Amino acid sequence: MAREKGCGLTVFPELSICGYPPRDLLEHKKFILDSETALESLMEMVPRDMGVICGIPYKREGGQGKGIYNSAVLFEGGKIIHVFHKRLLPSYDIFDETRYFENGEKSEVIRYKGLSFGITICEDIWSDPDVFPLATYSINPLQELSSQEAELFINISASPYETGKPAFRKNFISRLSAKYKRPFVYVNAVGGQDGIIFDGNSFAVTQDGIIISHARAFEEDMIVFDSSELKGDLHTEIYPLEEEIIKAIRLSLLDYMRRCGFKKVVLGLSGGVDSALTACISQMSLGKENVLCIIMPSPYTSMESIEDATALSRNLGIDFHIIPITDTMETYLNALSPVFSGRKPDTTEENIQARIRGNLLMAISNKFGHLVLSTGNKSELAVGYCTLYGDLSGGFALISDLPKTMVYRISRHINATYGNPIPERILTKAPSAELRPDQKDQDDLPPYAVLDAVIELYIEKSASMDEIISHGFDPEVVRRIIFMINRSEYKRRQAPPGPRITSKALGCGRRYPLSHSYHF
Amino acid sequence: MAREKGCGLTVFPELSICGYPPRDLLEHKKFILDSETALESLMEMVPRDMGVICGIPYKREGGQGKGIYNSAVLFEGGKIIHVFHKRLLPSYDIFDETRYFENGEKSEVIRYKGLSFGITICEDIWSDPDVFPLATYSINPLQELSSQEAELFINISASPYETGKPAFRKNFISRLSAKYKRPFVYVNAVGGQDGIIFDGNSFAVTQDGIIISHARAFEEDMIVFDSSELKGDLHTEIYPLEEEIIKAIRLSLLDYMRRCGFKKVVLGLSGGVDSALTACISQMSLGKENVLCIIMPSPYTSMESIEDATALSRNLGIDFHIIPITDTMETYLNALSPVFSGRKPDTTEENIQARIRGNLLMAISNKFGHLVLSTGNKSELAVGYCTLYGDLSGGFALISDLPKTMVYRISRHINATYGNPIPERILTKAPSAELRPDQKDQDDLPPYAVLDAVIELYIEKSASMDEIISHGFDPEVVRRIIFMINRSEYKRRQAPPGPRITSKALGCGRRYPLSHSYHF
Repeated sequence: MAREKGCGLTVFPELSICGYPPRDLLEHKKFILDSETALESLMEMVPRDMGVICGIPYKREGGQGKGIYNSAVLFEGGKIIHVFHKRLLPSYDIFDETRYFENGEKSEVIRYKGLSFGITICEDIWSDPDVFPLATYSINPLQELSSQEAELFINISASPYETGKPAFRKNFISRLSAKYKRPFVYVNAVGGQDGIIFDGNSFAVTQDGIIISHARAFEEDMIVFDSSELKGDLHTEIYPLEEEIIKAIRLSLLDYMRRCGFKKVVLGLSGGVDSALTACISQMSLGKENVLCIIMPSPYTSMESIEDATALSRNLGIDFHIIPITDTMETYLNALSPVFSGRKPDTTEENIQARIRGNLLMAISNKFGHLVLSTGNKSELAVGYCTLYGDLSGGFALISDLPKTMVYRISRHINATYGNPIPERILTKAPSAELRPDQKDQDDLPPYAVLDAVIELYIEKSASMDEIISHGFDPEVVRRIIFMINRSEYKRRQAPPGPRITSKALGCGRRYPLSHSYHF
Repeated sequence: MAREKGCGLTVFPELSICGYPPRDLLEHKKFILDSETALESLMEMVPRDMGVICGIPYKREGGQGKGIYNSAVLFEGGKIIHVFHKRLLPSYDIFDETRYFENGEKSEVIRYKGLSFGITICEDIWSDPDVFPLATYSINPLQELSSQEAELFINISASPYETGKPAFRKNFISRLSAKYKRPFVYVNAVGGQDGIIFDGNSFAVTQDGIIISHARAFEEDMIVFDSSELKGDLHTEIYPLEEEIIKAIRLSLLDYMRRCGFKKVVLGLSGGVDSALTACISQMSLGKENVLCIIMPSPYTSMESIEDATALSRNLGIDFHIIPITDTMETYLNALSPVFSGRKPDTTEENIQARIRGNLLMAISNKFGHLVLSTGNKSELAVGYCTLYGDLSGGFALISDLPKTMVYRISRHINATYGNPIPERILTKAPSAELRPDQKDQDDLPPYAVLDAVIELYIEKSASMDEIISHGFDPEVVRRIIFMINRSEYKRRQAPPGPRITSKALGCGRRYPLSHSYHF
């Protein structure tokens, strides 16, 4: 296809041969061999005069250190004509590249089809202190390539999405181009991997830092960029943040399901906003025929909740069942009564309800093969306002990195943009887990606006308690939120993965001990 | 105490000030400051003329790279007189030191109280190609110290336990001493951290490689070593492997409970060997008054299983309750019948039973504050022969790194050594999950002897399918086991932590993607 459009060089993203991040699969010799075989197949498929750059784990011969590089190969006519090894290996947040790879040692300009260019891989460009003051590396590959008279820079990346990141990246690379006075081709991976989202958004900029060619976000795309005339395809679309997040979650869900072999999802609808949003995004992503909702009322479930959940299902055109849990609750309480005798009801009885619901969803998953989507938001997961093996049950936690305030914002956006599927009452009533009479979230938690602001400072910005208090929050409230966050690490350890949307999700990029007596 | 015994220098292990591994706590500036404060308090407590070496995360001033070192400080009289930074940072299996620390750049001999010695930290000594051919580092700090005329080597470590490791470590360091013709003082951490076990086993060897002083395993201990006369305390005890593993698990459990604030445990007794062993080790570790067992029979539970579980509880002197699950099972099946209509029973109904049991244990945990111990073994967890949110429920998975064959071996050892607490029938009957009529593990799984051998080759030795088959195993059986292992990664991701006993536990040192379509 690139050939038909007259291209001489096609560029694929970082580790495009095997996917990113392959994690400990990289420790299997066979995985490295199979990657080489996949590269050979690709070389056979490509027209003989087409140059291709792609990313692959590359075996390192002899010497000490790790046995592979994270590399870019340039091939043509069935032969590799250049190999470049990634020089800066990120080891923070979700990245573990020093676990697997050895650093590359040099950056050389390549002359190919009359063009001189320098290749860098992802992190390699995040080391220019003028443009990125947070850089922690003493090596600057772009500077080295620049001094070797590269006419063009090419970077292949697997750069994860987070809100604001696509714009930040464009601005950053525009500034690099302007600084070094070179056009820049930036090719990013696209796809979801266990909650990490690669948003695509590949582009090319002129030496003045102007974006002249741009690929789509959150889907595979091909753009043609003419490096001599400095022009190219512009597939840019403009949409609001709420829509960007929906697209990110959709991609993450679709790729998780595809790789695991799921066709349909099942989720519990409580009548609250979290499960409503989860249902909406599922239906928008998978189609109404692939979403099954289960409404599981207890004696504490209000009639309004059942009505709202039912109306939502009908609005979305999705199948639903109502399975009351009262009888099952009673048999648990009967069975436990000899052991519990004389003890007052507490959160134990609330958790039993949540766990019955989790079990029913898992039973439906076991019987029909649907993926269970858990419906908890980031605010709950952060402070542990959720039940292990209850509402935390599931294979994928669709909105687990959305703070509650963002859950409302996106729900309102969906109503405004997609014909009001969410009954208004879901958006206006006070949030409640409905696990005891007259329960309201705000009896157990600080107001969500405060909670979300403190969570953002503590988890995303790594602010200390004192720093957060200095923003003007009530010290007691801050102390209590931080205590709740740290006390509930064990719940998060056993929680399902979910799409990473913020700069610090409560998932694989945040790694705390479970058992420690340090209070911070 | 060291002072009273006439010591001039006291040596504590790696990161002894803050514990190992602190993980992302290291990213909090306050954690580093609090570690400094703790060091200052220690400096105040110690007699003024006592030298102390201890491990601490050490702030790095200026420059690029990570903001801290993993360091050893030597202090005396309230002042730090020497700081050494770890040079080789492990990044594999359970280790993530390149995520946090910058490499130290030099190794210098220290002269203190008339003695010249060189300090290394853990990994620093695992780089001598003569003694450790697997070494992957091009730097060899011991060689550097040796050429600087150190009279003695000191290594402070946080070296994790695995079966065989204490003996391997002693042999390894004896050979280093003999090669470099220096006495060697090796000080290892002791304690459990989220399943990682530091076994202590500190010791001193002569320049001929003979161990002349040795501290206890799996408990805090102090030994005095006279570096001029080359003699010291010998607290060595000899015990069989089964006993070593029991001690390792005990330490891991006690430290997990202490740090999390648990006093008692609760577990389900099925009448099978896994829960029997879990109950025995719990009782031996915590005392009979701190273990509560729950027997939860279903219609498929044999009378023998109830008798055996009851007899075991009585033999151990621990409290138990019998809570039948039949009524609860029925309410689940009734509730689901409209959705399941026309479908045949399958593993769905089996999982419901396992999940009811998990919920009952969690309810007791919620009501009384006991820690739920899950009772699954490594063989089951490897192939996914276990129920997520069912028997995988719990805060700590006590025998999750013991293959089934080792579960039997340790159970027989306990019977032989500690007065036959486990009814013989538990050890002789065919293992069964008892989730359907006449079910036997061996109907669903290959024989455990084969299964465990293949799991060891695949998971511990990283052997490929072809390599395993070349050992003489049935190719179809090997293929099926490997398929089951890879298919069940999602269960392990949501499983509780447990003591790491083998060289590769199914826990934090093994990091695979959940969703991928690679078959290996």
